[in-house]
Amino acid sequence: MSRPGRLYGVGIGPGDPELLTVKATRVIAQSQVVAFFAKAGRRGNARAIVDCWLKPSHVELPLLYPMTTESHFDDQPYGQALASFYQESAAAIAAHLELGANVALLSEGDPLLYGSFMHLFVRLRERFKVTIVPGVASICGAWGAAKSPMTWGDDSMVVLPATLPLEELIRRLALADAAVVMKIGRNFARAREALAAAGMAERAIYVERATMTGEAVMPLKDKPDGATPYFSMILVPGRGRRP
Amino acid sequence: MSRPGRLYGVGIGPGDPELLTVKATRVIAQSQVVAFFAKAGRRGNARAIVDCWLKPSHVELPLLYPMTTESHFDDQPYGQALASFYQESAAAIAAHLELGANVALLSEGDPLLYGSFMHLFVRLRERFKVTIVPGVASICGAWGAAKSPMTWGDDSMVVLPATLPLEELIRRLALADAAVVMKIGRNFARAREALAAAGMAERAIYVERATMTGEAVMPLKDKPDGATPYFSMILVPGRGRRP
Repeated sequence: MSRPGRLYGVGIGPGDPELLTVKATRVIAQSQVVAFFAKAGRRGNARAIVDCWLKPSHVELPLLYPMTTESHFDDQPYGQALASFYQESAAAIAAHLELGANVALLSEGDPLLYGSFMHLFVRLRERFKVTIVPGVASICGAWGAAKSPMTWGDDSMVVLPATLPLEELIRRLALADAAVVMKIGRNFARAREALAAAGMAERAIYVERATMTGEAVMPLKDKPDGATPYFSMILVPGRGRRP
Repeated sequence: MSRPGRLYGVGIGPGDPELLTVKATRVIAQSQVVAFFAKAGRRGNARAIVDCWLKPSHVELPLLYPMTTESHFDDQPYGQALASFYQESAAAIAAHLELGANVALLSEGDPLLYGSFMHLFVRLRERFKVTIVPGVASICGAWGAAKSPMTWGDDSMVVLPATLPLEELIRRLALADAAVVMKIGRNFARAREALAAAGMAERAIYVERATMTGEAVMPLKDKPDGATPYFSMILVPGRGRRP
């Protein structure tokens, strides 16, 4: 029996295929299996990003979410469905690793910052060797698209999911010099309200689909209310020491 | 007279030369001038990282800091020296751009997160076209080296320079689920005290020289007191929702 393969958690960056690291492209090229998350019925964004880096000889392993939106996360049956999904996905990857194949599990942005990769990683790391390939985080892609320096000197920065309650958002923003509000999707109005309460709305920047087709950057105050796409966030640049 | 060149703010990642993005390597290859910060008398870490990506035909433009340590930042004459340095560096880059050369200004990690690049960017962006090439942030390199997932579900994360006063560190840590403490250098004892006060010291991880030669990862509690290298930080992983 062959030696088990190695699992690679590969950060593939914010969207532009050129923002993969050289290491990510090498690891993908040297892996027999490329696994990625996607919604059922779709190819998935991760798969689209690496399209130009795949070869016909790659075995593709799509991992299809049972879900649709973030709003169901606190739903008990949904949480159980998600746990089963991660368990089955880990088993599917383990089967390839057991046969000796190396598996590159793709992760948009960086694998260890809100990445679905982490849920499989914690299920597989005791049994298999794992290498993390850090990637360009989606937040870096966003402030790069906005050409907005984020932290100067002694600035502190907070990264907040807009899924938090309004009061929690405000408390955390009040203590931050710079801020990123993620997961704004259907929480956009709450995110804006929190930023206004923290006195940050005036200098906040809205970024959508950074580094991808359809990229948009605008002052938050110019953004109409309403739901925003999954790949959107709000940036509040710091204003620290600038010699 | 030729058209002015373009300035590229190129994130070169946390240290491993393979963690440059494909775009960064292309931009460097297509730039006539490669500029980078260094301490006087040294080649500099940025220059070392890209060594394998440079060609003999590149014009190298080292920008030599007038300074040594972070502790002088509040010193008025030092602040003025730094301002002069940034002004002169911007002028040196502008001279090349005016002649029509493209200039790749290297930035360790990501260019817009505590990067010296930002100080030249704000001085040049009105006069020249600028492209930002986001990079793998040093914080992503650190938690990748530690193989430590940082943020789960609704976790918020704070990034703090240890140069802040103790009470400020504690207040900000108290409201965070995950944390990164940077610039610990000679502020290591204060950083540890703040983490202990916030109840985070037990699960904190110390990371030194992530992705570089001499990389070290250990529980914070195993790290002896004393000064730490420039390339060191402390991570506090979040503990949010894990289906």
